[in-house]
Amino acid sequence: MINGKIDFRSDTVTVPTEEMRKAMYQAVVGDDVYGDDETVNELERLTAQRFGKEAGLFVPTGTMSNQLALFTHVQRGEEVILPDNCHIIVHEAGAAAIIAAAQLRSIPNIGGEMPLDLVKQYIRKDPNDIHQPRTALITYENADSDGQVRSVKYMKEIKEVAVRYNLPVHVDGARIFNAATYLNVDVKEMAQYADTISICLSKGLCAPVGSVLVGSKEFIALARRKRKILGGGMRQVGILAAAGILALQEMPQRLQADHDNAKYLATRLKEVKGLEVYEERQQINMVFFRLKNYPLDSAALVRYMAVNGVRINGEDNGMMRFVTHYYVSQKEIDQVVQLLKDAK
Amino acid sequence: MINGKIDFRSDTVTVPTEEMRKAMYQAVVGDDVYGDDETVNELERLTAQRFGKEAGLFVPTGTMSNQLALFTHVQRGEEVILPDNCHIIVHEAGAAAIIAAAQLRSIPNIGGEMPLDLVKQYIRKDPNDIHQPRTALITYENADSDGQVRSVKYMKEIKEVAVRYNLPVHVDGARIFNAATYLNVDVKEMAQYADTISICLSKGLCAPVGSVLVGSKEFIALARRKRKILGGGMRQVGILAAAGILALQEMPQRLQADHDNAKYLATRLKEVKGLEVYEERQQINMVFFRLKNYPLDSAALVRYMAVNGVRINGEDNGMMRFVTHYYVSQKEIDQVVQLLKDAK
Amino acid sequence: MINGKIDFRSDTVTVPTEEMRKAMYQAVVGDDVYGDDETVNELERLTAQRFGKEAGLFVPTGTMSNQLALFTHVQRGEEVILPDNCHIIVHEAGAAAIIAAAQLRSIPNIGGEMPLDLVKQYIRKDPNDIHQPRTALITYENADSDGQVRSVKYMKEIKEVAVRYNLPVHVDGARIFNAATYLNVDVKEMAQYADTISICLSKGLCAPVGSVLVGSKEFIALARRKRKILGGGMRQVGILAAAGILALQEMPQRLQADHDNAKYLATRLKEVKGLEVYEERQQINMVFFRLKNYPLDSAALVRYMAVNGVRINGEDNGMMRFVTHYYVSQKEIDQVVQLLKDAK
Amino acid sequence: MINGKIDFRSDTVTVPTEEMRKAMYQAVVGDDVYGDDETVNELERLTAQRFGKEAGLFVPTGTMSNQLALFTHVQRGEEVILPDNCHIIVHEAGAAAIIAAAQLRSIPNIGGEMPLDLVKQYIRKDPNDIHQPRTALITYENADSDGQVRSVKYMKEIKEVAVRYNLPVHVDGARIFNAATYLNVDVKEMAQYADTISICLSKGLCAPVGSVLVGSKEFIALARRKRKILGGGMRQVGILAAAGILALQEMPQRLQADHDNAKYLATRLKEVKGLEVYEERQQINMVFFRLKNYPLDSAALVRYMAVNGVRINGEDNGMMRFVTHYYVSQKEIDQVVQLLKDAK
Repeated sequence: MINGKIDFRSDTVTVPTEEMRKAMYQAVVGDDVYGDDETVNELERLTAQRFGKEAGLFVPTGTMSNQLALFTHVQRGEEVILPDNCHIIVHEAGAAAIIAAAQLRSIPNIGGEMPLDLVKQYIRKDPNDIHQPRTALITYENADSDGQVRSVKYMKEIKEVAVRYNLPVHVDGARIFNAATYLNVDVKEMAQYADTISICLSKGLCAPVGSVLVGSKEFIALARRKRKILGGGMRQVGILAAAGILALQEMPQRLQADHDNAKYLATRLKEVKGLEVYEERQQINMVFFRLKNYPLDSAALVRYMAVNGVRINGEDNGMMRFVTHYYVSQKEIDQVVQLLKDAK
Repeated sequence: MINGKIDFRSDTVTVPTEEMRKAMYQAVVGDDVYGDDETVNELERLTAQRFGKEAGLFVPTGTMSNQLALFTHVQRGEEVILPDNCHIIVHEAGAAAIIAAAQLRSIPNIGGEMPLDLVKQYIRKDPNDIHQPRTALITYENADSDGQVRSVKYMKEIKEVAVRYNLPVHVDGARIFNAATYLNVDVKEMAQYADTISICLSKGLCAPVGSVLVGSKEFIALARRKRKILGGGMRQVGILAAAGILALQEMPQRLQADHDNAKYLATRLKEVKGLEVYEERQQINMVFFRLKNYPLDSAALVRYMAVNGVRINGEDNGMMRFVTHYYVSQKEIDQVVQLLKDAK
Repeated sequence: MINGKIDFRSDTVTVPTEEMRKAMYQAVVGDDVYGDDETVNELERLTAQRFGKEAGLFVPTGTMSNQLALFTHVQRGEEVILPDNCHIIVHEAGAAAIIAAAQLRSIPNIGGEMPLDLVKQYIRKDPNDIHQPRTALITYENADSDGQVRSVKYMKEIKEVAVRYNLPVHVDGARIFNAATYLNVDVKEMAQYADTISICLSKGLCAPVGSVLVGSKEFIALARRKRKILGGGMRQVGILAAAGILALQEMPQRLQADHDNAKYLATRLKEVKGLEVYEERQQINMVFFRLKNYPLDSAALVRYMAVNGVRINGEDNGMMRFVTHYYVSQKEIDQVVQLLKDAK
Repeated sequence: MINGKIDFRSDTVTVPTEEMRKAMYQAVVGDDVYGDDETVNELERLTAQRFGKEAGLFVPTGTMSNQLALFTHVQRGEEVILPDNCHIIVHEAGAAAIIAAAQLRSIPNIGGEMPLDLVKQYIRKDPNDIHQPRTALITYENADSDGQVRSVKYMKEIKEVAVRYNLPVHVDGARIFNAATYLNVDVKEMAQYADTISICLSKGLCAPVGSVLVGSKEFIALARRKRKILGGGMRQVGILAAAGILALQEMPQRLQADHDNAKYLATRLKEVKGLEVYEERQQINMVFFRLKNYPLDSAALVRYMAVNGVRINGEDNGMMRFVTHYYVSQKEIDQVVQLLKDAK
């Protein structure tokens, strides 16, 4: 429950825990533009360390983290190779064309992965051909917003292609701890195949605000300048960082519970007539299904649930998505399933 | 022959005809920035008329014509739906990210066409979702640089989708007269399914320099302003337009000869051991083949031909392309085929 | 004192008050991207009301607030008229050229004001001349980072010019409450001469993070979309907004104390040999002076103060600036003056 | 006379001479994108040589030449120092904000020159301050569109400041031969104080279309790539270059005649009641005056002249400008003066 409602819309709705509120209350803060905020410095150091990178940079959102990565890796007009359904293309408001001014070369996502031969084919080979922009970056999500996780093997293969053509790799790791939980590996093992990673502290980790971009010292120094350009250079930001430190240190280990709840929810949804669950997508804290001869259509279902104190999103491209998180219990899942059964 | 060489590299290499040189010599010209150049005004009027559009705008290159179309149709950060192998993506140096600052949403080109269901799926549906940029344009080539022609039926279908979602269609018609020749239709029949079209007067039509962008009066007025921004507002440009008028009026009817020559070349190439001709691509003035156990590799073949007074390009993605045009005769084709046979 | 140091560098260094920390601890929060965060909604409503505007938008920094105003008021390539020493030009990292892609037409700041006749002269008059970009905005600071305040009369005059040419006015009000305090007027009286205003809640008002951009409903709706593009759409941002509400409601009335302290500091600095105080600039919480035959140069003075637990900035264009704020007391001023006298 | 009209609007209205038409008729041309056009190669070589630079690049307009210089010298968001009345600011349609995405830091033009101390003051000194963009270029015109010429001494002083801060200098030399004629120096003497120069072949030199950007080999190679992005990479451009070669070689020596005609025109204009000539601006081929109790206002005068077969522009910022060129004779000047006297 969040503010008295069951909320299945996303894990972005999670509010800070009591512990986080206390940490924010007590946080030692300073002016981060002067480098004086000890708490944010500590969060940046801890995140970098956790991912085996040299440095980190706190930013207000996952979108800024991704866009800052593009802005720093890519010169204007250069190309970025990425899967056609990824967050940067679909859900960042066209920012890549405005901020980095990058040319996106999207690759059809087949079963959650960009085919390696297509990646290789799309990389520009001839730096002397003035008709052709340079390829500057390969990027993808792990886990993606469709709930799917890329394997460590796949990460390694992409990195190998990138190295061969001297390209950096950026991973949108908004839910990288969910991916690591599913794969049962340490995030450091995944991180070795990325030059830079965006990590969200909100979502399943429950911090109120913030992401950390990690990479080499040199890269992060450049990104820090560019963060100023985007208006992301906050002042006494240790307030937020204090919650972020707890998100980083205490919360990843409880994501398995969200995944278990999602599995439980998927199983129970199968009891409901008129719902078709996409079981092959069942990897992290997201359950996908569609309405097939269900008594209500998507919009009516959203309204019906709202009346009954449950927040859900309507369908997107014909699919419904329920997301589990810290504030969703098994009992609440049972309640929602009962509501679904009772609808007419 | 051009300047004493047989030139199979592209139809962009064509030099102006004697008639064009005379027309340029005699052209009445004025300052086009003041609207005083009668000859360019006439060319713009004639081209618009020929394509059934209200107005036209002369620009120095096909790239500027396409980029101006994007720059005028699309607001910064909005999306353009287009096939992943088209000239705008592959051969315009990343300009779409710099000038229009558009976000490209490329669609895999299956057998020369973007699947209509993918086009529909990629169009953004929810203008109120602040995560999503607006779709602003659908664009494609006809004929494309791979030598393939889109049918009138396909053009109609794309236009219908566009109309349904209230989107304009731009056609990169660098070789639209070649496409019309292949389809045996008037360009006006094709043009009805496009809001704007880029038409090249150089290439197969032999003008030395220049393209015309056609569309509605209102669109062309906007494009004229933006042409100034790009530095494309030339002064006594009637010199070039004089050749352009001949290109438009006299040259389209002779493209069939180039297509026949290409077919002849393809047939004769099959006699050469170690060459594999892509016959299904044989539509306009381009012949595609690959080297398969041929005695020379691509780079050696380019050098060998150069020594023998023949200009060809090396392979691109494993494919060789020979292009016929006004300055390629059947006899020269025979000469080149003999050279190919003699190589060792 | 902040974290055990006397800090005269800027009012940006202020940390949240105990009351603010409590408010943040208790804040009711939700996902602001869904519009669910009651506290930020309240802050936006209260700020708009306080300034007599229809709507407000919370953003992480003053830079984002200004840049968002440009990005929303100005089409790419259009012109912005502004004083040559303002924050947007001098201290926002060139962002106006990247985010809004505006052309800056700066006007020499004479005695703190842009001469009205120059403003009128710079406004583009001929919308049909394709050589000329359109003028899209007039903007200036009040108070500015040089410590100077624009009069209500000047604000009115600028607005009248703007109205005559149908242009909007944006005021960078990072320290607008300092200006209002100096002018002894309500901010609403000033705000009537601006279409949009950026208001900082940090700086003298002591909130840890955040600014609010206010304007018409329609403008703020557009700005909300563009905030998403910049990565400024935070989630449970009510944490920060809770401190912001106190900053807005409780802190403006105490700015007079900072101004009094600045005046006191200026008076006492005149006792120190080798310092020349710029008295004509003495309007808000900033004291400007220069070193003239002082025993230490700027860099040495910074080090000497640091050793003695006092943080100051070095000179900028030959001038030193000391800033008073909530965490600077008269006793600390006396301490610093003594240190200045003792240096050798 | 041009096309039967006396034309005082600008020297941009000049049409090619008979010799130029013949040269274009006979020009050896090739595909310049492949580097095959001998005539344009020759023009680029000759222009570079004439200015003492390593390399040159032909572009369709002076605007593209200037914008390409900015695009190549300046990274996005970096600053350009330039006089506030120069062509790049006033008459290039805001292109600098779109193509180079540069931040313009304009300096008041005092008596035709940027005060050196202001230039020095505006240059950014601290590369480590993340609030500040980097200064990347100093640029100015010589002669400028206001008819004024910068002295060689001034050019030297600007270059010295630039060298001290490690900045390049670009000179907009649209009318650099007019400046050299006025100063009675070789253009090479002026060119030594610029890293890159834009030279127009049209205007007083009478080529129909085209400018050449000159600079170092390395710079021109970069600019050639960027010209492709702007759609300025024309094909058989030797047609235009042939006229350009004559413009470069034969025409500069006759500019003195235009200057003499302008002086004659200025003298005669003083005979006309109600006209006030700006004599201090009388340097090149432009005469500035204003209407002061003249029987007609600016718009009526334009119409009156049109009826009498004379083309003039209306006033701009209260000033009229008459321009002399190859197609203006002393007899025509007398005719126009008589018309001015006869108006009522």
